[in-house]
Amino acid sequence: MKQTERHRETRNSLVPLFEPDSVAVVGSFREGRPGGYRVIKNLLAFGFQGQVYPVNPLYNTVFDRKVYPSIREVTQSIDLAVVITSAQVVPEIIGHCVEKKVKAAIIVSDGFAEKDEQGARLQQEVVRIARGSGLRLLGPNTIGVVNPYVGLITSQYGVLYDKIRTGSIALCAQTGLIGPSTMPFEDMQYGISKICDFGNKCDINEIDLLEYLVKDPKTKVIALHLEDIRDGRSFLEKVKEVVSKKPVLVLKPGRTKESRKALASHTGSLAGEDHIYDSAFKQAGVIRVNTYKELFDLAKIFAYQPLPAGNRVAIITMTGGGGVMAIDAAVESGLVLAELSPETRERLAKISPWLASNPLDLGPAAVVVDNFFSHYEEIVEAVSTDRNVDCAAIVFSGVPRVLDTQMFARLKTKISKPVAFWIYGPKLSLTEEFVRNLENQGFPAYLDCEPAIKALGAAFKYSRIKSRFSPAEEEP
Amino acid sequence: MKQTERHRETRNSLVPLFEPDSVAVVGSFREGRPGGYRVIKNLLAFGFQGQVYPVNPLYNTVFDRKVYPSIREVTQSIDLAVVITSAQVVPEIIGHCVEKKVKAAIIVSDGFAEKDEQGARLQQEVVRIARGSGLRLLGPNTIGVVNPYVGLITSQYGVLYDKIRTGSIALCAQTGLIGPSTMPFEDMQYGISKICDFGNKCDINEIDLLEYLVKDPKTKVIALHLEDIRDGRSFLEKVKEVVSKKPVLVLKPGRTKESRKALASHTGSLAGEDHIYDSAFKQAGVIRVNTYKELFDLAKIFAYQPLPAGNRVAIITMTGGGGVMAIDAAVESGLVLAELSPETRERLAKISPWLASNPLDLGPAAVVVDNFFSHYEEIVEAVSTDRNVDCAAIVFSGVPRVLDTQMFARLKTKISKPVAFWIYGPKLSLTEEFVRNLENQGFPAYLDCEPAIKALGAAFKYSRIKSRFSPAEEEP
Repeated sequence: MKQTERHRETRNSLVPLFEPDSVAVVGSFREGRPGGYRVIKNLLAFGFQGQVYPVNPLYNTVFDRKVYPSIREVTQSIDLAVVITSAQVVPEIIGHCVEKKVKAAIIVSDGFAEKDEQGARLQQEVVRIARGSGLRLLGPNTIGVVNPYVGLITSQYGVLYDKIRTGSIALCAQTGLIGPSTMPFEDMQYGISKICDFGNKCDINEIDLLEYLVKDPKTKVIALHLEDIRDGRSFLEKVKEVVSKKPVLVLKPGRTKESRKALASHTGSLAGEDHIYDSAFKQAGVIRVNTYKELFDLAKIFAYQPLPAGNRVAIITMTGGGGVMAIDAAVESGLVLAELSPETRERLAKISPWLASNPLDLGPAAVVVDNFFSHYEEIVEAVSTDRNVDCAAIVFSGVPRVLDTQMFARLKTKISKPVAFWIYGPKLSLTEEFVRNLENQGFPAYLDCEPAIKALGAAFKYSRIKSRFSPAEEEP
Repeated sequence: MKQTERHRETRNSLVPLFEPDSVAVVGSFREGRPGGYRVIKNLLAFGFQGQVYPVNPLYNTVFDRKVYPSIREVTQSIDLAVVITSAQVVPEIIGHCVEKKVKAAIIVSDGFAEKDEQGARLQQEVVRIARGSGLRLLGPNTIGVVNPYVGLITSQYGVLYDKIRTGSIALCAQTGLIGPSTMPFEDMQYGISKICDFGNKCDINEIDLLEYLVKDPKTKVIALHLEDIRDGRSFLEKVKEVVSKKPVLVLKPGRTKESRKALASHTGSLAGEDHIYDSAFKQAGVIRVNTYKELFDLAKIFAYQPLPAGNRVAIITMTGGGGVMAIDAAVESGLVLAELSPETRERLAKISPWLASNPLDLGPAAVVVDNFFSHYEEIVEAVSTDRNVDCAAIVFSGVPRVLDTQMFARLKTKISKPVAFWIYGPKLSLTEEFVRNLENQGFPAYLDCEPAIKALGAAFKYSRIKSRFSPAEEEP
């Protein structure tokens, strides 16, 4: 469907989708199965602050709430309807939504264009019913949205936790893999502004999302997984506008002809050659990532850290071997090794003559200097605030040590350049805890070398993109 | 140092290093600092089965054991000495080892060639003292070795656990990062045959290790991190011999000129251009990996799984999106999508008409077929044993489900082809537990898509290498 065929809307049109005052849930309330029951359960667990109206003619109550036989029977106004019924009855329910002047509907149900010809016709019918009514549709075949700021969650699956940390990362994907029942958002603890699964994109698509998210004050970085792009030209135009304000990361599967074939049947749309996407992305200022993990790994540096002024990286490590690996990753990510200023070298030499180069390997000094880690804060500060350094990668072991959380909190206030951590150690639980502590202090941290460095590289890359696409400053 | 300059030894020469009956530990027994105290503590915790002789003229007892003033005062024979003293006294101690006819010494101390000219001269002196005596030297500047089969560990650092699972992966690195105090071997739970940190390689190097490990009945796969290769020709000759029997994975940092410069000062040897290594590795049948994580990720498939007969992969997934990402990774790893046989398609169609293609997306069938997961075992078996399938990648969610551990144990006995898992889920602890359970059943499992698929690709690649380097079968 071309953008021109669709009713264009402003950001406000997606407000009922992400920030509804009231949600109707149309589905089965049978316990223990995916469906409406779990949606209500999840909404209650996540502390949704608006009204919730369960809808199903076969039930009287669920979670001690009145169940309405039809959306039309709800007397109050409804911002958002979550529809989880068999595909066949979806057109009728969407008809009720139009009648009731519901503002947005998430069609969770599958069995539409992703399934077969008959499903595609059903999907067209649904679109036809909503057209011109002002009702916006997400899906079908979607897990829906999450907005942790208001406790909104529309997943019909078990989630195993009750909270997603609020923050500034918007994650939008054309797969249910993005959902809170498949990603350990609580354990990862990084802050989310919005989550959205596009599903079949019968109405709301990536362009609408960009329009909404660029103006969303909670969102600082937009991470997109896109299986297809319906209207490439409009998408790229919109991206160019967005990247002057916020970074856009895109994972676009379909790098091989085999995966494009699967995509064609999966999304019901033809996928173009990968190199066309690749060069269009470059031109438009998209930062392309290659793996699902990278989408998350790179997003978080933008959430936590300022942009670097240049690409000169300092590496602080506990082992020479770790430093060398970090150099390879840095150079391959577009960074160069910073040359420490004479002042910094002098400051470090006072602690130990072994502290002189970049990468700064602390290992040799650590075994000879008494109480070495009492100098750690000073070392990190000296290197990270050096005028010749634009960003820093810190390699450290996640074992109980003299380093305290307060130290990193203090460092955060002193360092105005991006810093990323590679944390390793003998005990996974301790390493993960250290990572979470660092991230709570605003430092992105990783269990491997390459993502930490790639994140710094992406921050530099975006700093260039941002200035390229920002409107030229007026001359005085 | 050229291989020709060294005394050539057979595998047996490293037996005292990895399988000693008795270990002398020469170092400080001051509590709570890195050093001899921790080595003894670790040896006791890991349950070392041989004799342990603490050596230091300043102590009488440690852990209720007699401390000997000198190695020469130990009346029993000593297989291995672990030396953790200041660099200056190492020559004297190595002299004592020669006198006492100690068979191998690990020089943990740093301050040798990796430090400065003076250290390099000290290192030469140590080598000179040992030369011709039959005493083999590991290091200096090494954390030493681990052999979990006999509880041998020589790390001077805190380890935070008391066990490394025995298995068939040999990990050798030119960095202390390989050590049990930096890697979560217990949590990762994959089976180790030997761990070795080469350190400065004043004597024992990668060629000696290959010679030993190719004959080591416990080792099935050899994973090497090499910062330099002293004698490239001999190394490649040895590799060609080894890969006809066991896979050799190599991580060789120094892909960029910046990292090669750091390596030169770090290892004290000149590093060659990367493309030379790259083509030599290809020619010799080395499987090269690019990240530290990959060294571990790819090693484990060889430990757990048989080699595939070909490169036709089947993908079983819970989401279409996951399937598409897996295809990209598969094709980029040298695999092709298997075409399921008519018999398998028929068998699957009996469960649900939606089960027909590869990738086999179970999602649509799972929501409509009652008690769908009771068919899971049959589905995995049908696909994995299909005559058109050489290997399988299984994408699954690590949440509590109807799937039981017994099921995977049964599947392991039925499937004689390599299978790797990508496990994701909403709770990190459960996902990690699922991964460990799978690996306990002999299935390598990963928290991301790409490593799971790359591991299958590496297994296929090695199956080709193995047949290329195996001596031709005689005609009947």
